[in-house]
Amino acid sequence: MTRPDGRAADQLRPVKITRNWLDHAEGSVLVEFGRTRVLCAASVTEGVPRWRKGSGLGWVTAEYAMLPRATHTRGDRESVRGKIGGRTHEISRLIGRSLRAAVDLGALGENSIALDCDVLQADGGTRTAAITGAYVALADAVSWLADRKKLAGKKAPLVQSVSAVSVGVVDGEPRLDLAYEEDVRAGTDMNVVCTGEGGFVEVQGTAEGAVFDRPTLDRLLDLAVAGCAELTRIQQEALQR
Amino acid sequence: MTRPDGRAADQLRPVKITRNWLDHAEGSVLVEFGRTRVLCAASVTEGVPRWRKGSGLGWVTAEYAMLPRATHTRGDRESVRGKIGGRTHEISRLIGRSLRAAVDLGALGENSIALDCDVLQADGGTRTAAITGAYVALADAVSWLADRKKLAGKKAPLVQSVSAVSVGVVDGEPRLDLAYEEDVRAGTDMNVVCTGEGGFVEVQGTAEGAVFDRPTLDRLLDLAVAGCAELTRIQQEALQR
Amino acid sequence: MTRPDGRAADQLRPVKITRNWLDHAEGSVLVEFGRTRVLCAASVTEGVPRWRKGSGLGWVTAEYAMLPRATHTRGDRESVRGKIGGRTHEISRLIGRSLRAAVDLGALGENSIALDCDVLQADGGTRTAAITGAYVALADAVSWLADRKKLAGKKAPLVQSVSAVSVGVVDGEPRLDLAYEEDVRAGTDMNVVCTGEGGFVEVQGTAEGAVFDRPTLDRLLDLAVAGCAELTRIQQEALQR
Amino acid sequence: MTRPDGRAADQLRPVKITRNWLDHAEGSVLVEFGRTRVLCAASVTEGVPRWRKGSGLGWVTAEYAMLPRATHTRGDRESVRGKIGGRTHEISRLIGRSLRAAVDLGALGENSIALDCDVLQADGGTRTAAITGAYVALADAVSWLADRKKLAGKKAPLVQSVSAVSVGVVDGEPRLDLAYEEDVRAGTDMNVVCTGEGGFVEVQGTAEGAVFDRPTLDRLLDLAVAGCAELTRIQQEALQR
Amino acid sequence: MTRPDGRAADQLRPVKITRNWLDHAEGSVLVEFGRTRVLCAASVTEGVPRWRKGSGLGWVTAEYAMLPRATHTRGDRESVRGKIGGRTHEISRLIGRSLRAAVDLGALGENSIALDCDVLQADGGTRTAAITGAYVALADAVSWLADRKKLAGKKAPLVQSVSAVSVGVVDGEPRLDLAYEEDVRAGTDMNVVCTGEGGFVEVQGTAEGAVFDRPTLDRLLDLAVAGCAELTRIQQEALQR
Amino acid sequence: MTRPDGRAADQLRPVKITRNWLDHAEGSVLVEFGRTRVLCAASVTEGVPRWRKGSGLGWVTAEYAMLPRATHTRGDRESVRGKIGGRTHEISRLIGRSLRAAVDLGALGENSIALDCDVLQADGGTRTAAITGAYVALADAVSWLADRKKLAGKKAPLVQSVSAVSVGVVDGEPRLDLAYEEDVRAGTDMNVVCTGEGGFVEVQGTAEGAVFDRPTLDRLLDLAVAGCAELTRIQQEALQR
Repeated sequence: MTRPDGRAADQLRPVKITRNWLDHAEGSVLVEFGRTRVLCAASVTEGVPRWRKGSGLGWVTAEYAMLPRATHTRGDRESVRGKIGGRTHEISRLIGRSLRAAVDLGALGENSIALDCDVLQADGGTRTAAITGAYVALADAVSWLADRKKLAGKKAPLVQSVSAVSVGVVDGEPRLDLAYEEDVRAGTDMNVVCTGEGGFVEVQGTAEGAVFDRPTLDRLLDLAVAGCAELTRIQQEALQR
Repeated sequence: MTRPDGRAADQLRPVKITRNWLDHAEGSVLVEFGRTRVLCAASVTEGVPRWRKGSGLGWVTAEYAMLPRATHTRGDRESVRGKIGGRTHEISRLIGRSLRAAVDLGALGENSIALDCDVLQADGGTRTAAITGAYVALADAVSWLADRKKLAGKKAPLVQSVSAVSVGVVDGEPRLDLAYEEDVRAGTDMNVVCTGEGGFVEVQGTAEGAVFDRPTLDRLLDLAVAGCAELTRIQQEALQR
Repeated sequence: MTRPDGRAADQLRPVKITRNWLDHAEGSVLVEFGRTRVLCAASVTEGVPRWRKGSGLGWVTAEYAMLPRATHTRGDRESVRGKIGGRTHEISRLIGRSLRAAVDLGALGENSIALDCDVLQADGGTRTAAITGAYVALADAVSWLADRKKLAGKKAPLVQSVSAVSVGVVDGEPRLDLAYEEDVRAGTDMNVVCTGEGGFVEVQGTAEGAVFDRPTLDRLLDLAVAGCAELTRIQQEALQR
Repeated sequence: MTRPDGRAADQLRPVKITRNWLDHAEGSVLVEFGRTRVLCAASVTEGVPRWRKGSGLGWVTAEYAMLPRATHTRGDRESVRGKIGGRTHEISRLIGRSLRAAVDLGALGENSIALDCDVLQADGGTRTAAITGAYVALADAVSWLADRKKLAGKKAPLVQSVSAVSVGVVDGEPRLDLAYEEDVRAGTDMNVVCTGEGGFVEVQGTAEGAVFDRPTLDRLLDLAVAGCAELTRIQQEALQR
Repeated sequence: MTRPDGRAADQLRPVKITRNWLDHAEGSVLVEFGRTRVLCAASVTEGVPRWRKGSGLGWVTAEYAMLPRATHTRGDRESVRGKIGGRTHEISRLIGRSLRAAVDLGALGENSIALDCDVLQADGGTRTAAITGAYVALADAVSWLADRKKLAGKKAPLVQSVSAVSVGVVDGEPRLDLAYEEDVRAGTDMNVVCTGEGGFVEVQGTAEGAVFDRPTLDRLLDLAVAGCAELTRIQQEALQR
Repeated sequence: MTRPDGRAADQLRPVKITRNWLDHAEGSVLVEFGRTRVLCAASVTEGVPRWRKGSGLGWVTAEYAMLPRATHTRGDRESVRGKIGGRTHEISRLIGRSLRAAVDLGALGENSIALDCDVLQADGGTRTAAITGAYVALADAVSWLADRKKLAGKKAPLVQSVSAVSVGVVDGEPRLDLAYEEDVRAGTDMNVVCTGEGGFVEVQGTAEGAVFDRPTLDRLLDLAVAGCAELTRIQQEALQR
C-alpha cells in the first residue's frame, strides 16, 4: 500500500518549527506539518483571572482558530457569524489542557500565558501541529519570564514537554500523521498528546465509519507514541537553535 | 480501598431506564446512573437538513444541556448568556457521533431524529448516561417510524446498540463509573463508548493531573468494556419491557 | 357542553405537587397540572446583586424555560438560537413579580433566591403551574434559610402564599384551567395570580379572537378566584407533608 | 387629594395626535399624552411572512423601542447591548396583539403592516400612548392600501378602533392616565386596551406593592373604560381632519 | 443644470435648529437639513469610563442610529438583528471624533457627555446634519455643567465650534449638501467637517463610480468650506436665541 | 528632523509582495510594509449573492481582521467577544470599496471574489498595506478565472490597479507611510487610495489632535500620490514575476 505522498505508514510529514516568527509576542512559532501551517503566539500577562487571584498559581489558556481561506474552500469567519463553533471550542480546550500538563502553575507564579494558535493553512492535523508548536512558543515565553526575574521561585515552571500527532486507519492500514486527503477517508481517527517521556496526556479516538477493536487501538497508540518521540526531538532541536 | 458509596472498583452505580417518560416525543427515556438523572427525548421529523436533501440518507443529531440547578450550585443559563459554552458543544457533538454509529442512515431514509439530552440532576457521568439513555429513546423513535411504514426500505436502521461509561484513576486506583465526588479527585478521566458487541466507538482519555502510562490505559479500557457490556444488558431489558 | 377531558367548567385538572424532587436545590418541586409538568428549583445565594447591596433587602428572581420537546413538535433551543424569545421573557418576569408578592424582602435580609421553572412537558397553563409550584419551592428555600439562622431578623419572610390559574372562554363558555387543546380554541384567555387570602397579584386577560365584555370578565375572575383557593389548599397540604 | 399636575382623578393628560409627521411612511403619527411623546410609523409591504403565504390573510406586527434619552437618565441602546430586553419584547407583543384586534386580516389580503412605535420622550404611559397613536397610523396605512386598490375584496379591513390607557392606585386613590411621577408611587398599575365600542382587548393589572381587591379592580376598570372612550373620540377627530 | 429642488450648486437646503426639543436631556436639538431630521440629545454623566479615571480628563462619545422608517422603505432594527451594522459604527465613530475636536477635555474635568443622534427622517446628509446639530446640543450641555459649577477649572471647555456638510459630483457638477435623490446618483461623495474658523477636522471622499482628480477634489473642498461657514452662522444664531 | 527608522519624509518603508503564499486560494499575497505583515487571500466563488442574481454583474467583497497578537499587547478575538468592532467594520468596508474600483463587475460576470486580509503583525498602515496586497491577490484571482474561461465576455475585468498609503503630520512635518511609533504621535492622519494612473479612489483625513489647514492637506496629498505611484510600480513588478 502506498500513501498519496509516498510516505511509509509510520512516517511523519516534513516538520518545521520556526521560532520568533513575530516581533511583539513573548514567544512565537510558525509550525509546519507538511502543508499544514499554524502560527502559535504566546502572550504573557502579569496577573491571573479574577477567580484565581491570591492563589499563588499561574494560568495557561489557548485559543485556536482558522483563517477563512486556510481550507480548500473559504469558510465563514466566526467573528462575522457572531459565535464560535463547537469544533473550535473543542480544539481550544484540548490545546489548553495539553499545555497546562507541561507547566507547574505554582512555579509560574501569578502570571498568565495565552497561546493563540491560528491556522494559516490547513492540510490535516491542525490541532496536533498547534499543540506541538505551542509548546515551543510556551517554552520561549517561560524563558522570557525567567530572564526578567518574574517567576515565583526557583523551580522551573516547565516540568515536561508535550507534543501531539494524529493517527488513523486508512484503507484498513494504521497510519501516522494523516494529511487532509487521507483524513477524510479514515475509518478511525485518533489524536494523541504525549509528554517527552512518552506518558499520555490525551487520547481521543473516534470511529468515523467503522467501529475499531482493541488490537487496532493498540497499533494506533504504538504509532502515535513513536511519532510523538520524533516530534519531541524536533522540538528540542528547535529550542537549542 | 473503599469508594465513597461502598461500590467495588468495577461496579456501576444503580442504573435505571424509564421509557416513555414524556407523552409527546416519539421516543423518551429518563435515565438514572445513581443520582445523575438525564431526560432523553427523540424527536422525529420527516425530511433532512437542506445540505442532505436528495441523498436518500437520514440524519441523527443530539443536543445536550443542563438545567441551571442540576448541579450543587446554580449555573447560569446558556440561553441567558446568549451563547453555548465549549463543554456543552463538545458533549453534544460526542453524543451525536456516538448515536450515528448505531444507525444505517440509508435504511433510515430521509428522516431526521433529534436527540435532546437534558440533565435534570448531575452527579458525574452525565454525558455517558445521556448516550446510554439516548440509544433507547432512539430505538423507540425508529420503531415509531417502522410502525408507520416511514422507513426507506426493508433494512432495519439500527445496526448495533451503543452505550457509554466513564472510568478514571482515583487515589491511584482505576475505577468504573465515577460519581461527582470521585470525578473531581480523579487524576485521569476517560469516557468510553462501545457497541453492544464490544467494539469501540469513542475513547477519550484525559490526564487531569498526572500523566498516565500504557498499563493504566489498558486497565481503564478493560473496566470500561465490562461496564458497557452490563449497560447493554440493561438497555436490552428496558427495550423488552 | 362537555370539556374534552370530561371536567366541569369550574374544575381544575388533577394537580400534584412533589417536593424535594432534586437533591441539591434548597427547595424543589415537580408540579403537575394534568399532563403539564414543571420542575421548579429554588436556589439560595448569600448576598444580593450589586445594585441592591447595602439596602438590607433580599431579592427574588425567576427564569422560565421549556425543554425543546416539552411540546407536541420540537422547538429550537433558545441557547442555540442565541437569544431568549419574547414569550419566555414575559413569563419569567411574571413569575418573578408574582413570587416577590409573597415575600417581605426586608425580612429575607440580603439573600437572593432564584426560581428556575423548567417545563418538562407542556399541555397548557405552564406559567400558572410554574407560579403555583415555585411558591412551594420558595417556601422550602425560606425554611432552609431559617433553619440555618441566615435570616435578617425575627420576622417571617413569607407574608402570604401565591397561586395562579388560567381561565378562558371556549365555545362561548367560561372555563377554569385550560389544557392545550382548549387553549388554542379559546376566544379569551386570562391568567390570574392570587394570594392565599384571595387578593389579586396579577390579572392578565387577552382577547385572542373576540373582544370580551364586563360580565364575561367578571365570570372569568370568579372562576379564577375559586381555582386559586383550591390550589392554595393543595399547596398547604403539600407543605404539611 | 390633588394630583401633581392638578388633574382630577378621572382626567386624561392633554392628548395630541399629529398625523403625517413623516414623509415616507404610509401612515405616521406623533402622539402625545402630556410630555410622553411617541412616534408611530406604519409601513406597508406587499406579501406576508413565509409561514403565512397562500393563506389569503394579511399580517400586522409592532415593534416598540425607546430612544436612549427618552428617560430622565440615559439608558443603553438595545442595539449596542446586542439584545432586546424583556420589557421591550413584552410591550411590542402587546401592541401587536392589540392592533390585530382592529383588523380583519382576511379583508387586508396578503399585505403586511409593521407598526414602529418609538418613544422620543417618556413620562409614563408610553405603551398606551403607542397603542392609541398606532391605531391612527394603521388607519392611514389601510386607507393608503384602499386608495391603491391593493385590498383583497370589498370588505373594509378596519373592523373596530382600539385605544389604551393606564390606570393605577396612587396614595390609595384610583387614578386615570398616570404620569411617571405617579407611576413610580403606584401600588397597583393596570393597562387596559378597549375597542371604540367599549369591549376589552387586553386587561393587564399588576400589584406593584400591595395586593388589590375586587372593588378596586372594578373601580380601575371603570376609569379605564371612560378614558378609552375619550381617547376614541380624539382618534376620530384626528382621522377626520 | 438644475438641481431637483431648484437650488444653486453651492446652496444649502433650508437648515433649521430647534433647541430644547426634549425635556430631560441636558442639551437637545432637532436639526433639519431639508427633509432630513435628526434628534440630537446630549446626556451628561459625572465621572468617566474606568480606563480614564484619575486622568483629570473628560470624555465625549456619540451614538448614531436610524429609526426603522426614517427611510423610503422600512429597514430592520439593529436591536432586533442583535448587532450594529458597519455603516452605523462608522458614522458613530465619525461623530464622536468630530465633536471631541470641539472640546478641551481637561477643562471638561472628569465628566462624560454622550451624544445620541437618532435619525427620525432621512433624506441624504444624515451624518453631517447630526454633527452640526450635536454641536449645539453639546454646547447646551457644557453650559448646563458650567451653570452647576461642575467644570474642572476656569477654562471654557468649548474651544471651537464644528459643523459638517456633504458635497458631491452629480452629473459632472460639484454640488453642496446632496439630498437623497442626488446622493444615489453622485459619482463622488465627500463629507467634510470644519471648525468655525474654517480648519479641517475630517475629510472623507469616496469615488462611488468614477475616480476623481485633484481639481475636482479642490472644487469640492471649496464648496464644503463655504457650506460649513454658513452652517457655523446658523449654529451661532441658534445658540443666541 | 529624522524619522525613527532614518527614512526621508517622503520615503516608503521597504515593501515586499510575496505571491502564492497559500496553496488553496485562487490568489494569495503576503504583503509587508516594514514590520507590518498582512496575508491577503482572494477566494473565487461561482455565482453572486441572492440580491444580485440575474444582474449579469459580479461581486467583490473584503474582510479585514487582526490576529490577537499582531499588536504590541494581545487583543481579544472578535469571535470570542461575539461581535465585530467598529474599526474592523470600517476598514473592511474601505477595502471592499477600494478594490471594486479596480473591477468592471460586468466583465467579471456572475462570479464573486472575497478578499480576506488578515493582519499577522501590525506596525502602522495595516489597512493601506491590505489594499495594496489585496489588489495583487485580486489580479491573480481574475487570471485564474480567465484561464478557466469563466469570465462573462471578452473584456478584461481589471480596469485599473489600486494601491494605498498613509500619510500624516508628525512633529509638524508631513510624512509618508507612518509606522506605529509615528502614527500614535501624528496630529493629522490620512489614508489615500489611488489608481495606477494617479486618480483618487478614497481620501480619508482625520485631525487626531490639531485641526489641519488647506496647505497641509495639499502637501499630504502630494506625498500620498507619489507614494501610491511607487507602490503601483512594486505591484507591477510582483505581477510580472
